[in-house]
This record gives sequence, structure tokens and C-alpha cells, in this order.
Amino acid sequence: MKTIKTKVAIIGAGPSGLLLGQLLSKQGISNIIVERVTGEYVLGRIRAGILEQGFVDLVREAGVADRMDAEGEVHEGFEIAVDGVSTRIDMKKLTGGDAVVCYGQVDITEDLMAARSSAGLETYYEADGVELKNVKSESPSVSFVHNGEKIELECDYIAGCDGFHGVSRQTIPAELRTEHERVYPFGWLGLLSETPPVSEELIYSKTKRGFALASMRSETRSRYYLQVPLTDKIEDWSDDAFWSELKKRLPVKAAANLVTGPSIEKSIAPLRSFICEPMQYGNMFLVGDAAHIVPPTGAKGLNLAASDVATLYKIMTRVYKEGDKSCIDQYSEIALRRVWHGERFSWWMTNMMHNFGDMSSHELEGETFERFMESELSYFTSSENGKRVIAEQYVGLPYEELAP
Amino acid sequence: MKTIKTKVAIIGAGPSGLLLGQLLSKQGISNIIVERVTGEYVLGRIRAGILEQGFVDLVREAGVADRMDAEGEVHEGFEIAVDGVSTRIDMKKLTGGDAVVCYGQVDITEDLMAARSSAGLETYYEADGVELKNVKSESPSVSFVHNGEKIELECDYIAGCDGFHGVSRQTIPAELRTEHERVYPFGWLGLLSETPPVSEELIYSKTKRGFALASMRSETRSRYYLQVPLTDKIEDWSDDAFWSELKKRLPVKAAANLVTGPSIEKSIAPLRSFICEPMQYGNMFLVGDAAHIVPPTGAKGLNLAASDVATLYKIMTRVYKEGDKSCIDQYSEIALRRVWHGERFSWWMTNMMHNFGDMSSHELEGETFERFMESELSYFTSSENGKRVIAEQYVGLPYEELAP
Repeated sequence: MKTIKTKVAIIGAGPSGLLLGQLLSKQGISNIIVERVTGEYVLGRIRAGILEQGFVDLVREAGVADRMDAEGEVHEGFEIAVDGVSTRIDMKKLTGGDAVVCYGQVDITEDLMAARSSAGLETYYEADGVELKNVKSESPSVSFVHNGEKIELECDYIAGCDGFHGVSRQTIPAELRTEHERVYPFGWLGLLSETPPVSEELIYSKTKRGFALASMRSETRSRYYLQVPLTDKIEDWSDDAFWSELKKRLPVKAAANLVTGPSIEKSIAPLRSFICEPMQYGNMFLVGDAAHIVPPTGAKGLNLAASDVATLYKIMTRVYKEGDKSCIDQYSEIALRRVWHGERFSWWMTNMMHNFGDMSSHELEGETFERFMESELSYFTSSENGKRVIAEQYVGLPYEELAP
Repeated sequence: MKTIKTKVAIIGAGPSGLLLGQLLSKQGISNIIVERVTGEYVLGRIRAGILEQGFVDLVREAGVADRMDAEGEVHEGFEIAVDGVSTRIDMKKLTGGDAVVCYGQVDITEDLMAARSSAGLETYYEADGVELKNVKSESPSVSFVHNGEKIELECDYIAGCDGFHGVSRQTIPAELRTEHERVYPFGWLGLLSETPPVSEELIYSKTKRGFALASMRSETRSRYYLQVPLTDKIEDWSDDAFWSELKKRLPVKAAANLVTGPSIEKSIAPLRSFICEPMQYGNMFLVGDAAHIVPPTGAKGLNLAASDVATLYKIMTRVYKEGDKSCIDQYSEIALRRVWHGERFSWWMTNMMHNFGDMSSHELEGETFERFMESELSYFTSSENGKRVIAEQYVGLPYEELAP
């Protein structure tokens, strides 16, 4: 067995773990990343691409922003369409200057991997049997098997960035954990294609046929989504069927711009709201999907992970630069406050934009809930104040500072 | 049998029916009111007292505003407290000049009754067996028994202002009606007392012990409410018990100002959201509680009735002044759009402000819903845009004009 010492052991080489590692390294805080799968596998996960300003700033602080700044596209607005009638949410105007950046999660992950690799920072991919030990003590450790060798990382802190199905969350004893969950009665069928997007900005479209989202990764690559019943299988949806249905759900003007082409990727994802409390246990901190999942309506998933990273980064910096360990206990409370806001916003956007039909999983009988949500959308897209409420949450609420 | 002709038969002598009658009379449109109970009984119903600007303007247009203008108090703000921490919703500042008027529903009703009486307009109180007939035809009628005499009102139109339990709504065949309903898992225990209010403005207070509302009718008369379980009986609540519990649910500063005294009235009311669609059938129009009920959080009940009155008044005026009957069919659609906004606002305020505990009647497991609502309150009371959204709906969304 090999023993390695480091200050922070990071479980998971997704964007959260990589970004945290890069930031800590910039401050001279040693860290090692342990990842269950290969780097290629991590990069195979197609995810969101809308970055809040706070995320963008963090990537810049990590010194990994060159390609994002060159290729990422600033989006100053997006469109909400209801039965073909569009309202533009002019984020820049409504927030007094804020916007988001459209840049794929896969691209950020690639950039962070490349930076980590060229800085010579250690990452163990394909680590088997990862176990977190003594997380309540002053000397936690992470053990795993790598290339047949058993390795033990002795560390001060563990960052659990290993996603919803990861082991880190399970380290918190079940009786000390509260898990909030809501599974929605529909999924999103996503299609990625090498075609120019129908619009320069995202279009969230609610119709009687269900919800659709027109988004993009670049000027030549489109990402579209359709609300589908949970019972649909990917085999039920040929590319042609997808394009035909999408056309019916987009506003006429956008539909007329639709360029179709073969799918590069096509998959159905369920929609889930999930929050685990607390987000820390002793010297182990949960970051991102390991502690919370949002439905994708509103593009908050990656951005909530980023705010966790920002909070943990501030805490680790204070611990190692100022020798002040008392701030450790602030993590869960600060992180969760922003998580709840993001969860609520995503839940709200999901409720407003989707067609629930007669799905009776609601406090209100199906049709009544639909009518409330129609009224909600009508109010929030017609009132200037309502639009500001959508815009300021879409661009991202401010990050909270640590208490002194 | 006596037959009487009039243009508009109004069922119900509550504030909606009386206000409509007064407005129509001002335009020379004859009308007769038929009421099941006595005027004293109508005045015995203790109700809300927060009037939107639209309502105030309508009372002025009806020429019955003298006492309201002299005694009603303009409220430019109100307070939302969460676990003792208060946020003032400065309606005037947040909306750019709007406010509400605090003046009791009983007082308005009295004023309207006095005006109707002194103008010599007909009202049949204690009308038995009221029946609406031929409402789909050009010659509808209302029959009833008054002082042992059978009377038939022959009219052009019928305004059903007879409340939730009235007969008017039942005139619409069940298969043509959709009734949306939500009964909340708690009630409001209200207490009226001849004591100075704890504050010049309303205080909506959410605490772990449940919700409380501190409101008033005048500088010397207070109206307080406590959220109570639906199983509580009025006998369970002595005045002392009420004051003691209220004190625990108000912010410390307000609680210190609490002047207690014997109750003048004390009652428990259930909370309900109810909407009937459509709001018209042939030449019969539903107005106010006959078509919709809101929970009292947000003070929209009387104000939604007023916007129905405003819409029907505009239609009747166009019919009789311009001879244009085609506008009749606009009533339900115009009225319902504003009703849904008010219903949604009241539902939202109720959800945010009350303690649902583990009541599992929600789409989300009890605690998750509570946490979402905590986040909602925290966002909407801390963001300027959020406060504007509360304020502009509290002062009342604008009345919609008829289509040309």
C-alpha cells in the first residue's frame, strides 16, 4: 500500500472537482483528485452550457479562461414563448448590466483537465473502491485501488465532488441526513446536432404539445430539447420525429429558421429536484451534484456547483492563509442558502414552463395547477418587475461572503 | 303575483351588488336588488378592509365616497415578518405612487345601503325562494316571495352577486361549469376588539408557531388573526388564550405595543381557493364570491369582486348608452383573467406565509415544500425586484378595458 499526503482530497474529476483543484493549487494548497472513471468518460457527459457571471469569474480566477473568453458567447437575453407568443427577457437591461456566457460544460471540463495536466497536478482516474475514512477526525483519508495498487491519501479535508451517485454523500450517516426529492412526471429528450441554432439566444417554449428548449453550444452546433412522457424510450424517437415535433413546439418565426441534420447525441433524461442537508460532515464537504440536483429548466445545475466551489475555496483559503479553522463550520449553511434559491428557481421555472396535463401529483388538481401556472407566466412575462425577477435569478444571485 | 320590469336584476345586497346598483343608477340604468336575508344580517358579516385604488375609484364614481375619504386611512406600506425579522413593503415607493385604503367592508356596505335608500332605489330584503329563469333568453326573469307576495322581476340582464352559497352559480348547467377548488389545511381565527392597533400598518407574520396577521379597522379598532388547525373550535379560544398566542407570533416590537381587550367578535374561517368558469351564462353574470373565493392572505376577496363590478359596469354602460350588445360576451374572459391573477397571488401569499408543518397535501413532501417557501419568502423580501412584485400585486393589477 502506498501512502500519499495532501491537504485536500477531491473525489471526482468533473467540472466542480477540477475547478476546485485548480483554484486551490493557485493558492498553493496541495490537492489530489480521485476519479472512478476515465477522463474520456467524464467528457462524454453532455451537459448544460449557460454560465453565470460568478462561474465565469471563478474560471478566470483559476486562470483557465482563455478559450472560454475567446469562444464563449455572451447572451444578454433569452426568449420565453407561450403558445407561440414570445417575450424577450433582456437580462442585461433588466439587471442593469448582467448577462450569461454560453460555453459547453464539456469544453470547460476539457480546459480544466488540460490546465491540471500541464501544471503537473495529480489526478487518479479509474480509481476503484474509493472509500472515505475518519472524516469526522483531524486526519481523514481516502483509500482506493489504482492500477492494482492500493493507495491511501492522508489529507486535512475531503471535497466530495462525485455527483449524485457518488460515495461521498453516503459518508454522512443516514440519521444525520435529510434528503429532499421531487421527481417530475416527464423527461427531457435532448438532441445535439452540427447545425446552426434557430436563434442567437435560447428559446424556452411552452405549448399545448409540451415544452421545448432551443439552445446551442456554438454558432454551428445546436442543442434542442423536448418534454416527453417518462415512458418514452429513445428508440421511439427517430431524428425525423424529433425535428418534426420540435418544429410544432417552436414559435413560427423560430421554426422557420430550423435547420435539421443528423443527431450527434440523443438521450432522455428524467427531471429531478434533490437537496441533501447538511452539505458537510466533519472535514468532508459535499459539492455540486453530490448534494443537489435541479431540473435543467433555468440552467442552474453547473452554476450551483460553482457557488459551492466558490464557498469552499474561500474557506480553504482562510484556513491555510490565515490559519483560521473556525470558518469551516460555515460551509453547509452558506452553500445551502444559495442552493435552495437555485432549487426553488428551477422548480418554479419547471412548473411554469411544462405541460402537466392531468398528472395529478400536485397539491392542486391537474387543471387548476395548469391554470395557476398560466397566470404565473402571464404575470411574470408581462410585468417589468416580473421580468426583472426572472432575469436577476437567471443571471445568478450574488455569492455570499463568509462571516468574519 | 306582482310583475315588475327593470333593466338589471341584481341578486344579493352585499357590497358587490350594492356598488353595481349604485353605478348603474348613476348611468340611468334601472336595477332592483333582491336579497335573501335582512340588511342587518348582511352588515353582521365581518370582512376585510383593504381597498385597492381601483375599488376606491369605483366607490368615488358611484358617488358614495364621502365617509370613506374622510375616515379611510391610506396605507402606503405593510410589514412582512419572518421569525421576528421584519421587512417593510413600501408600496408607494415600490410601485411609484400607489397605495391601498384601509376602510371596513361593513362600513362600505353601510354607506352603499344608505345611498341606495336615500336615492329611493328598490331593494327586496328577506326574499324567499329566489329563482333565476330563462337566463339564456332575451327576457330573463327573477321570481321570489316577499312578505308573502310572489314577485316576478322581468329584466334584460341578471347580475349574480349572491356569494359562494348563492343560487346564481347553480343556474349554469353543471356540465358547462368547471369549478376549481383548494381547501387549505388550516383556518384563520379572527378577533375584533375596541383597542388601538399594534401598528399603523398591517403586519403579516410567519413564525414556527404559525401565521398571524395584525390589522385594523380604525385607530381605535383592531382586527387580529391567528392560523389555527381546522379542528380547533371557537370554544377552545378564550380571549386570553388568543392574546397570549398572538403576542408570541408578532415581532417583539409589535408585541410590546399590543393592547388587549375584550373581543367584540371572534370566529374561525376556513381558507379556500375557488374559481368557477365561465362567469356568465346567457344574460346572467356572476360577480364576486358567487364565482370565486380567495384565501384572505393578500386581501384580494373584496377587490376581485370590485373588478368584476367594474367590468360588468363598463359592459352595461356600453349596452345601454351605445346600444352595442356585442360586448356582452367579453365579460367572462375579461373578468376571469384578473380573477386568476388575484387567485394566484392569494394562493402564493398563503403558501409562503403559513406553516404547513407535515401536512402532506402538497406535491412536495411537507418539509420540502416548507423549505421552498422559506426560500421564496427570503428571496422576495430581500430583492428589490421581489418586493416590487409583491407590492404591485398587493395594490392591485390594472383593470382591463373592453375590446373596441
